[in-house]
Amino acid sequence: MESTQVAATAQIINKDQLLTHWLGHRKVTRRALEAFPEKELFEFSIGGMRTYAQLTKEMLAMDGSTARGLATDDWGTFDEEKTELTTKADLLASYDESTEKIQNYWKDISMEKFQEKVVAFGQYDGTGYSILFYIIDNEIHHRGQGYVYLRALGITPPNFWEQY
Amino acid sequence: MESTQVAATAQIINKDQLLTHWLGHRKVTRRALEAFPEKELFEFSIGGMRTYAQLTKEMLAMDGSTARGLATDDWGTFDEEKTELTTKADLLASYDESTEKIQNYWKDISMEKFQEKVVAFGQYDGTGYSILFYIIDNEIHHRGQGYVYLRALGITPPNFWEQY
Repeated sequence: MESTQVAATAQIINKDQLLTHWLGHRKVTRRALEAFPEKELFEFSIGGMRTYAQLTKEMLAMDGSTARGLATDDWGTFDEEKTELTTKADLLASYDESTEKIQNYWKDISMEKFQEKVVAFGQYDGTGYSILFYIIDNEIHHRGQGYVYLRALGITPPNFWEQY
Repeated sequence: MESTQVAATAQIINKDQLLTHWLGHRKVTRRALEAFPEKELFEFSIGGMRTYAQLTKEMLAMDGSTARGLATDDWGTFDEEKTELTTKADLLASYDESTEKIQNYWKDISMEKFQEKVVAFGQYDGTGYSILFYIIDNEIHHRGQGYVYLRALGITPPNFWEQY
C-alpha cells in the first residue's frame, strides 16, 4: 500500500494520461490532414520543403511502429516512402490504422520500457520515453508546418488547443 | 527502500529528464530565432499569420511564467504584447532570461504539482503536467511554423533533432 502510494504521487504523467495526450494530438493532426485540398496535399509546398503528404508519410512511418516497437521490440523497417498511399483518403485511412495500432499495442508497453535503452528502427538510440516523445514532437513540428501551408492556401487550420 | 524502487521504476519520465527535454527544445528554438534576419523577424509572415517575433513573444509570455506558476502558484498576468522587445537582440535576451527562470524555479516544483489541478494564468484549467506539456508543444508548433518562414526566406533552419 505504502509503495503503491509513493509510485502514484511520484508520477509526472501516468500511462493513461500519456496515451490521451498522444491521441489528443492525433485528433488535431487528422483534422489538419482533412483540411487539405486533394491536389495541394500532394503538390503544394513552400521554400523547397516536402509536401504535406510527404510529411504525413513520415509521421505514418513512425507512429504505429513506435507503439509496436515499445510493446514488442519489433520495430520493423523505417519506410517513409509509402508509395501505395496516393490519395487523401489513403492517407486518412492509414492514419486511422496507425491510431488503432497505437491503441492496441499501448496496453502491452510495460512501465519499465519507458526507462529502458532502446534502438528504434534499428538505428535511433534513445530511452523508451525519449523515442516516444520525439515522434510526438516530430508530428507537432510537421503539423505546425502544415498549418502554414493551409494558411498560405487561404484555409483556416483546426484549433491547436482542441485536442479532444 | 522498497517504495523508492517502485517509484523509480514506475516513472515514465522523471523530473530531471523532463527539464532536459524542455531545455533541449529551447536550444533548438533559440537557434531558430537566431537564424532570422532582423527585418524579416519583425515583418515577414505567410498567409496573414503572425510574424516570428510575435510568435516568439507568445512563447515568452508562457515559458518562464509557467515554471514560476508551477513552483509558486503565482502565474502573473499573461502578456504576449511585450512592446518593449523591439530587436532580435531583445528577443534573444528575453529568451535567455526565461531559460534562467525555468532553471531556477524547476527545483521548487513539487512532484505532486504535476498531478494537481491548476488554473494557469488565472484562466486555463488543467493539470500541472498538461499545462507544461501544452506550452512546450505550443513552442514546438510555432517553431515549426518559423521553419517554414526560414525556408521561404532561403535560410536553412537548425536541425530539429539536435536538442542538446
